[in-house]
Amino acid sequence: MRVLLAYSGGLDTSYLVAWLTRECGHQVSALTVDCGGFTTEEKKSIHERALELGAVDHRFVDARTELFDRVLRWLIAANVRRGGVYPLSVGAERGLQAEVLARVAKQDGFDAVAHGCTAAGNDQVRFEAALATIAPAMQVLAPVRDLAPSREQQRAWLQAAKLPIPPAGGKYSVNAGLWGLTIGGGPLHDSSQGLPDDAWEWTRDGRGTARVDLTFEAGIPVALNGRRLAPVAMIETLNHDAGKLGVGRGYHLGDTVIGIKGRIAFEAPAAEVLLLAHRELEKLVLTEEQRFWKDHLGEIYGRRLHMGLFHDPFQRNLEAFFGSTQERVSGVARVLLSNGSALVEGVSSPYSLMAASDAKYGERAASHSNPAGAAGLARVLAEPGRLYQRAGERRAMLLDQESARGAGAEVSQ
Amino acid sequence: MRVLLAYSGGLDTSYLVAWLTRECGHQVSALTVDCGGFTTEEKKSIHERALELGAVDHRFVDARTELFDRVLRWLIAANVRRGGVYPLSVGAERGLQAEVLARVAKQDGFDAVAHGCTAAGNDQVRFEAALATIAPAMQVLAPVRDLAPSREQQRAWLQAAKLPIPPAGGKYSVNAGLWGLTIGGGPLHDSSQGLPDDAWEWTRDGRGTARVDLTFEAGIPVALNGRRLAPVAMIETLNHDAGKLGVGRGYHLGDTVIGIKGRIAFEAPAAEVLLLAHRELEKLVLTEEQRFWKDHLGEIYGRRLHMGLFHDPFQRNLEAFFGSTQERVSGVARVLLSNGSALVEGVSSPYSLMAASDAKYGERAASHSNPAGAAGLARVLAEPGRLYQRAGERRAMLLDQESARGAGAEVSQ
Amino acid sequence: MRVLLAYSGGLDTSYLVAWLTRECGHQVSALTVDCGGFTTEEKKSIHERALELGAVDHRFVDARTELFDRVLRWLIAANVRRGGVYPLSVGAERGLQAEVLARVAKQDGFDAVAHGCTAAGNDQVRFEAALATIAPAMQVLAPVRDLAPSREQQRAWLQAAKLPIPPAGGKYSVNAGLWGLTIGGGPLHDSSQGLPDDAWEWTRDGRGTARVDLTFEAGIPVALNGRRLAPVAMIETLNHDAGKLGVGRGYHLGDTVIGIKGRIAFEAPAAEVLLLAHRELEKLVLTEEQRFWKDHLGEIYGRRLHMGLFHDPFQRNLEAFFGSTQERVSGVARVLLSNGSALVEGVSSPYSLMAASDAKYGERAASHSNPAGAAGLARVLAEPGRLYQRAGERRAMLLDQESARGAGAEVSQ
Amino acid sequence: MRVLLAYSGGLDTSYLVAWLTRECGHQVSALTVDCGGFTTEEKKSIHERALELGAVDHRFVDARTELFDRVLRWLIAANVRRGGVYPLSVGAERGLQAEVLARVAKQDGFDAVAHGCTAAGNDQVRFEAALATIAPAMQVLAPVRDLAPSREQQRAWLQAAKLPIPPAGGKYSVNAGLWGLTIGGGPLHDSSQGLPDDAWEWTRDGRGTARVDLTFEAGIPVALNGRRLAPVAMIETLNHDAGKLGVGRGYHLGDTVIGIKGRIAFEAPAAEVLLLAHRELEKLVLTEEQRFWKDHLGEIYGRRLHMGLFHDPFQRNLEAFFGSTQERVSGVARVLLSNGSALVEGVSSPYSLMAASDAKYGERAASHSNPAGAAGLARVLAEPGRLYQRAGERRAMLLDQESARGAGAEVSQ
Repeated sequence: MRVLLAYSGGLDTSYLVAWLTRECGHQVSALTVDCGGFTTEEKKSIHERALELGAVDHRFVDARTELFDRVLRWLIAANVRRGGVYPLSVGAERGLQAEVLARVAKQDGFDAVAHGCTAAGNDQVRFEAALATIAPAMQVLAPVRDLAPSREQQRAWLQAAKLPIPPAGGKYSVNAGLWGLTIGGGPLHDSSQGLPDDAWEWTRDGRGTARVDLTFEAGIPVALNGRRLAPVAMIETLNHDAGKLGVGRGYHLGDTVIGIKGRIAFEAPAAEVLLLAHRELEKLVLTEEQRFWKDHLGEIYGRRLHMGLFHDPFQRNLEAFFGSTQERVSGVARVLLSNGSALVEGVSSPYSLMAASDAKYGERAASHSNPAGAAGLARVLAEPGRLYQRAGERRAMLLDQESARGAGAEVSQ
Repeated sequence: MRVLLAYSGGLDTSYLVAWLTRECGHQVSALTVDCGGFTTEEKKSIHERALELGAVDHRFVDARTELFDRVLRWLIAANVRRGGVYPLSVGAERGLQAEVLARVAKQDGFDAVAHGCTAAGNDQVRFEAALATIAPAMQVLAPVRDLAPSREQQRAWLQAAKLPIPPAGGKYSVNAGLWGLTIGGGPLHDSSQGLPDDAWEWTRDGRGTARVDLTFEAGIPVALNGRRLAPVAMIETLNHDAGKLGVGRGYHLGDTVIGIKGRIAFEAPAAEVLLLAHRELEKLVLTEEQRFWKDHLGEIYGRRLHMGLFHDPFQRNLEAFFGSTQERVSGVARVLLSNGSALVEGVSSPYSLMAASDAKYGERAASHSNPAGAAGLARVLAEPGRLYQRAGERRAMLLDQESARGAGAEVSQ
Repeated sequence: MRVLLAYSGGLDTSYLVAWLTRECGHQVSALTVDCGGFTTEEKKSIHERALELGAVDHRFVDARTELFDRVLRWLIAANVRRGGVYPLSVGAERGLQAEVLARVAKQDGFDAVAHGCTAAGNDQVRFEAALATIAPAMQVLAPVRDLAPSREQQRAWLQAAKLPIPPAGGKYSVNAGLWGLTIGGGPLHDSSQGLPDDAWEWTRDGRGTARVDLTFEAGIPVALNGRRLAPVAMIETLNHDAGKLGVGRGYHLGDTVIGIKGRIAFEAPAAEVLLLAHRELEKLVLTEEQRFWKDHLGEIYGRRLHMGLFHDPFQRNLEAFFGSTQERVSGVARVLLSNGSALVEGVSSPYSLMAASDAKYGERAASHSNPAGAAGLARVLAEPGRLYQRAGERRAMLLDQESARGAGAEVSQ
Repeated sequence: MRVLLAYSGGLDTSYLVAWLTRECGHQVSALTVDCGGFTTEEKKSIHERALELGAVDHRFVDARTELFDRVLRWLIAANVRRGGVYPLSVGAERGLQAEVLARVAKQDGFDAVAHGCTAAGNDQVRFEAALATIAPAMQVLAPVRDLAPSREQQRAWLQAAKLPIPPAGGKYSVNAGLWGLTIGGGPLHDSSQGLPDDAWEWTRDGRGTARVDLTFEAGIPVALNGRRLAPVAMIETLNHDAGKLGVGRGYHLGDTVIGIKGRIAFEAPAAEVLLLAHRELEKLVLTEEQRFWKDHLGEIYGRRLHMGLFHDPFQRNLEAFFGSTQERVSGVARVLLSNGSALVEGVSSPYSLMAASDAKYGERAASHSNPAGAAGLARVLAEPGRLYQRAGERRAMLLDQESARGAGAEVSQ
């Protein structure tokens, strides 16, 4: 059987290349969907290892631009942060990776696809949910989930077969992509423990101060410090530059698709800066209701992406909403990056609702306003509460009178 | 007429003490509802100025503990931050201040209350809304709103009358309280401008690093670094200590009650630390659904408080909800404060949902789980999307067939 | 001054034609924006009365199709019913009427527009909000709101001037339009009172039984019993035919824009039938999440339209969302109308999610499902609750142990 | 092994009594948790059949009052109707039935519990989710789900064993309880088909007219036509009396827990009348915000109960909210029942917000209101939209100017 394997270069998928070939007699083609985060050396060693393990071929598909166009732009538009902090660095990629896998498998006539997800994480749900939606007829192999070989067993099997073993990641499990790097495992399973300083990757020893100007057009980041950049290039630049200043660290203690809690540390310098900048710019050009409901629907959008529902039709409906709100999210945000912190110091836009007003908050009322109008507003806002209060007093008075007359206060009278 | 004036010691209310006395012939008693933020010297000078301006008497009412018990504890429980950043430092106080004013005025038989709010801000709405709800029969004087004397006119009038003029605040308008300090006016009306370094008050030149342990019981902060403290004392300590490390700065570009945008800078060290710590602790002990809906309802709760609806009955319903969720929010959060940034490094709780599980995310599935169950979950999650996809394909196939037969594809058939 | 008056033909606007002409010396042009509900005789008498009262001219603008295209189609798409019952019969029209008024006034160079709304209702807010948004520079006259002449005073003034007085509407105030007829006033101010049988207009003595087939394409009603009809014609037909069967009656006790409660009776046969049919059809072709969030956002959309925010940009964002969800809302609904009740007996669609499934609820599981998957789903759904329960038990056990040891159970340890 | 079987008397559970006894050698005790809907004869025949099939004993546990106190009161308080129509007649019962089963099994030391749910429906998820939460250590047998014997196979096996076979329910599957009766299967799997008249049970040939007065105290129904009744008695009376008038019929096309659509017909006369009455009474005594959020949270509460999350802690948080809103939901609603339709004609309450007001909607403004206040309100409501409009015009003007100067209009400049 010709099997197309989603190959990350890690232990699980390395084991699968060899195991599917030797134990099952399949012809395994390895495919790495590149959503960012690889160095040139890493790519080279991933490619070589796949072939050494017995893959009939291995290729990279560069999905970074598609990742931005179909996923990250909406995560920015919707200001998505799980639990208020985590920009969904990993979850953002899985649905697209599954789609690319199914797309190539169909085009090239493979008999099955395979992935290396375990039963203990979110990713198997994301892979399976995506494949069930877009390629329901495709056969899917998931031996690591179904047979649950331990990591020790996998290493032992590879060693016995004299096959290359991927470098052990120390006590942490690290996952890097365009939208951030996550660090899991080890001491992080204890919710009270932080990461030692040398365990961080992109922000290690990060310090220093800089100001950056981010320009957006219709919600899309288009320029950095006045220089136009494609989104992927801008994200990669920010991951590097802001990371050097220590920006983008966090811990995410969250709820997995399988009902338990999970905890990771993450470094997402570009996401941190872009999300802060975008959100502040929105405050200048959108009304409060737009912003309020965007925030809420954004949390729903992100939660569903986290659950693997990238291909669900409701996501498209939400994107129609977000797209409609982004028409005017154009302008510049200036962000101060300093020793690990990021603060938006100012925003400007040709669509500024502040500039459109002749009033100044706290100083000058709008030309059309007047004291009676301001007082009238307060009265109307307070009216339901006033009536509620009054109804309660009327009821209490009635009960007193009835009580004085010795009568029962039956509601039903 | 005996008038009880809400007296802050600033220009508007100082002008009113004298103006109501001299121009209207009222007997003015001045009342300062202390919600924190005053130094001892400030309190002394406020008291003396009120009397010099002609008040028949002046008193402070210490409302700090009541502010915590009736407002701040819910802002913590609900993790309230306007626009994701601003902890409602000022808006939190106004409803309670109006209530204390009305309470004293009723007890002491005043003929009217007075406040110094202008028509250009949120506060007049908050004051009027509160008074309309809890003291609808009380006469309310608001000469600054109704007659709109400019700040220059007020100063000139006081000068002509040879009365003390409150110290001018420079180009900024500063407002300090238990839950933070706000800085408004001047360059901040230009959305692209930040504050110069020397304009910050509590965090000026703040730097250094420290770790603090915050203990909560049922959502209430009860101890700092293991030492039990009353909430007010803990907030005042944190404002000082975390402020010295530069923690708690921000800009808030938001929507006012009167429909326009407003922008302020703020320093809220205690709120920053307590809100971060509380939110992370909740992630450990609450389920995802609890957290998700708490966040949303919290934003609503805060928005309504901002609008002056402190006394509205729906706030009480929301508090019943928040109270119910806080029963288990007990435990410790460790926060790293460093050169202006704050990061929760770890949380622990006797009610930890992580500790209650025998599964480890990404490593060990729950003892009751199995591969078929995990796959089954993914299938069910994906099922609506799969059917949607399939229905679309069936429809397209039907249209093709009809098109091949030359027939129209009327939905209505 | 040349004034363009929004003229309904009722007492307030009739009074205004004469009053603005005689007392203020204006040249009054009367404009009736036709949003349905007029008989030919009514239109004739409205026209004649306007001229007799002194208007320099009077015209009708037929806005029914625009009303459907810009308002009603979204009220259907969003299944809008205030308080679960009332299809916003009146509120739907006001924003568009104000817009048409402003549009004509600008085109024809009028100096001002005028309306006859009182300060006691929603309509003045809707008119003013619309005009403030789309024609902020336009002068707006609202003498009935500002001077508050009573209805008796208006009648007396007209009588003294020997001018025609519109026929008194009995004790009720009736308002008819394409989307329904409302009956207000009189006994309805007492919340415990219903309407006597002879006070109903469109459904009086309605009885009998019929089945109707309603065809929708992308959320728009396009055919009635298989016959294609333009939306306006279909609504008018249904108002007549379903009204004759007593369908569409209701009472609406709701919250006004000005903070108090209001209560009306209404007859909306077409809205009743179309909304029921549309909602059931959606259940066949949309997923649960789509439907759930559509319902919620629909309630928000309707509430804001009710408040006069027809021209607010957030409405456009919501319409982008609704539009995206309606792509597949095509098919037929069969509705049983019988003696005042309406029940959707069946729906069919080429996009049916039921037909796309090979499973039958309660009988046959999906081909891809299996018992272990079903059990796995239940486990995952229950997992957060199970852990919550378990954490509580662990905590209780710990407390027992500590209590047995005589130690206090400090959370902070 | 001593097994406690949840016994409904239907085919699946009848088969299980015998199968678990004969094939597995278990001692089967049968337990029927009575949530209403049984006639005396049905109870007798259920009891006898259980024993004939080989159960060592059989008992009924009357859970009707507990069902009301722990489930139905909240469904009323939250006005729960799935899809706007279906009062969750069946789903309401399952969580409690599972809890009673587990409770008895623990008390009496059973080795395992068993249920007869299939893999094709919601009920197995509800049973398993409840048991996983409250009795995670309990062994649960679900042979019908796991082995999936068809209904034909079950009948054949019983016949071969010469055991009694429950009466076949015709082509429909009927399920009756306190909160309604559901009819599933057969033609209803075709979404376009309604039920023939003789397939209805409680409302068959229902006609006639009556008015009923329903009295609530703090959200709980306490009296019918002025006569105090316990809730269970009131519901049973209304099911009978309103059913005789044809009230309570509906079709529910909804989303199952397992991702597919399901469709049933239902008859829920008591739920229909009580929910209508309660909702209208709430409109009189609650503010709009209370009602709006209650509706939304109620839909969430009901959806989660439908999914089997009766024991999830978030349900308790929502109940705290609902309970807080119900304090004033006291008063009387008069409902007109007529030939299958139900209409609330009037409501009254000592806490009426209408009676507390001195304003009359559409006629008399509140004493504290004035024209300037009303106009001011409209201006503030419209202000965000006005600024948005103005910002767009400013931007367009700027672009025109730049275009005239031949310059590009780069946002990023």
